[in-house]
Amino acid sequence: MLILSNEEIESFLSISACIDALEKAYKSWDKGTAINRPRTDLVLPSPNESGVYAFKSMEAGLVDPPIVAMRINSDIIRWRQQGGRVLKTKVPAASGDKYVGLVMLFSTENGEPLAIFPDGVVQRMRVASSSAIAARCLAREDASTMALFGSGWQAGSHLPAMCAVRNLKRVNVFSPTKSNRDTFAKEMQQKVTAEVRPVDRPEEAVRDADIIATTTNSLTRVVSPEWVRPGMHLTCVRVPELGDETIRKVDRLVIHSHKHAPENYVAGFGDDGIPAHDAIDIIKKGPGQVSGSLVEHPFWLAAPELRELVAGKVPGRASSEETTCFLNNLGIGLQFAAVGAAVYSEAKRRGAGHEIPTDWFLETVHP
Amino acid sequence: MLILSNEEIESFLSISACIDALEKAYKSWDKGTAINRPRTDLVLPSPNESGVYAFKSMEAGLVDPPIVAMRINSDIIRWRQQGGRVLKTKVPAASGDKYVGLVMLFSTENGEPLAIFPDGVVQRMRVASSSAIAARCLAREDASTMALFGSGWQAGSHLPAMCAVRNLKRVNVFSPTKSNRDTFAKEMQQKVTAEVRPVDRPEEAVRDADIIATTTNSLTRVVSPEWVRPGMHLTCVRVPELGDETIRKVDRLVIHSHKHAPENYVAGFGDDGIPAHDAIDIIKKGPGQVSGSLVEHPFWLAAPELRELVAGKVPGRASSEETTCFLNNLGIGLQFAAVGAAVYSEAKRRGAGHEIPTDWFLETVHP
Repeated sequence: MLILSNEEIESFLSISACIDALEKAYKSWDKGTAINRPRTDLVLPSPNESGVYAFKSMEAGLVDPPIVAMRINSDIIRWRQQGGRVLKTKVPAASGDKYVGLVMLFSTENGEPLAIFPDGVVQRMRVASSSAIAARCLAREDASTMALFGSGWQAGSHLPAMCAVRNLKRVNVFSPTKSNRDTFAKEMQQKVTAEVRPVDRPEEAVRDADIIATTTNSLTRVVSPEWVRPGMHLTCVRVPELGDETIRKVDRLVIHSHKHAPENYVAGFGDDGIPAHDAIDIIKKGPGQVSGSLVEHPFWLAAPELRELVAGKVPGRASSEETTCFLNNLGIGLQFAAVGAAVYSEAKRRGAGHEIPTDWFLETVHP
Repeated sequence: MLILSNEEIESFLSISACIDALEKAYKSWDKGTAINRPRTDLVLPSPNESGVYAFKSMEAGLVDPPIVAMRINSDIIRWRQQGGRVLKTKVPAASGDKYVGLVMLFSTENGEPLAIFPDGVVQRMRVASSSAIAARCLAREDASTMALFGSGWQAGSHLPAMCAVRNLKRVNVFSPTKSNRDTFAKEMQQKVTAEVRPVDRPEEAVRDADIIATTTNSLTRVVSPEWVRPGMHLTCVRVPELGDETIRKVDRLVIHSHKHAPENYVAGFGDDGIPAHDAIDIIKKGPGQVSGSLVEHPFWLAAPELRELVAGKVPGRASSEETTCFLNNLGIGLQFAAVGAAVYSEAKRRGAGHEIPTDWFLETVHP
């Protein structure tokens, strides 16, 4: 069994390989030769961090390549008030101030575990790949300028991913802290041929933009409705970055998944002697209250899914004047199966990672 | 992170530790300080074995001890006709003719993965522990003779488990193959003080029995309704071993879980070019058709759950004349959390297993 690190995966995984693998997986899923088990969360009090523990799992299987992937997150979460807003943060509570997110791959040929690796790099590559696949169907073919909001982990994958599907000449980067956007722009300039330009105000970022991509942690609106112009394509990593009013201005909307919220299994709060506090009150109100926008049936759930767009069951952009939008509303295991399979095959080709005995994970008894 | 083998676990895990841990977990679950995500199965064609691939997962979390367990099975399955019966078998398709079943444990204190080990020993210990916990509430206190059907993996854990909760003097073992039951009885005689006696006919096994325990792979009835006498306690590892008619003769019935069938996610069969065959036809009919007894809403689903019995919310045996029964109808992740935590704490105390660097499974990036 192969053990890989984020650094190894980052060194060899190309965004175009991710896009290709994921596009194929969406088509398979649409025609019934791939399957996805939607995310479920277990939520419990965490004894150590005065926070909340959440165990997230999702899994998916492909017929070709013959693989199943399970993605697991084991997180300590805190909510805090800042201004009028609720911010959700993961606490790096594991040794060395680290997080725990894992992808495990299994062979459907013989059942064996194939690999296990942290989810960080794959996680951002798959989100960016889904955005890029949607943009390939929805953005103007001659799109040349992109406004990018955010200069963090997701921004760093979205920029090359969007450059892979459209011939971008310029990317205007805005994030609230000048030093962050400047550093980000400098780093990114090494990776793409488009001119990457940090800008001081969001209005400046969107002025000539054909594409607006938001890649932030914000639970409140980043894109004002008045910035939306004919012909634009919008894409986000969280629905609240756009917000209802902006989304309603769009002519053609596609979402990632009709299953828009994970199923929650919550224990250990409330009437059993464990004192309630803010975070727990939020939990008790359910996920709909946590993000402020995951209402029971948001209007945009009526939009088609990305897999239908990729499979050609619903049309992409119909004219150069249309305004289009893709909502990356909830991640799915299928992304980890597709990108995970690409990681595995490239790692094997290169001999990357640590091999540990597969036999440790096998058994002679009929379980 | 600790890696353990079935052999190591078997060497130190006592049935009484399992029973204690599991009894506490049922009480916690009942009062809301433990949580369980029911089993889901992904089903896909397997390219290699002309069989079917099934990926099974379930998970559960406890507040005390602060642990989450995930149990995974990655199986190649074949169905075959024998006589009029459909037999379901797992194919040991992994290297060295092995199976793949795993338990992973995580800390809710800091999120870290704690251990990973094959599920075989824990799997049989938890089934037997649940049966024993039910027997402690339901069997006559003076029960002294048990009829045990089966001489395989589950039989080997049920015998000591039942001896741990009732002062049994004699166990009559029946299984169809004489050499199997003889060998089994001889082995078991080393482990318990009760007299373990192989018998040639099922009627002989049940003649003086206070408890009938079925621990077979049979998908058809093992216990005839006419064998049920006042005061008896019946227990099984699969509902079809008893069958509707026998179950209906019981005065007091308790089941393991009201969620009686896993949720299935099936892909890759039928209209997509992969040829259909027997196993696939069975799959297409759904799990209700596979076992022959998992009908949509079997009458026994109205019975209370084991956790309610353990918590004292429903009464146990009310008189020495009552006939009682426990149906181990579907396994749950909670069993792996409880028994897994007992395994982990004992392994740490003894310094058992391989340690591999936990850091391989951690990451610095916010996933």
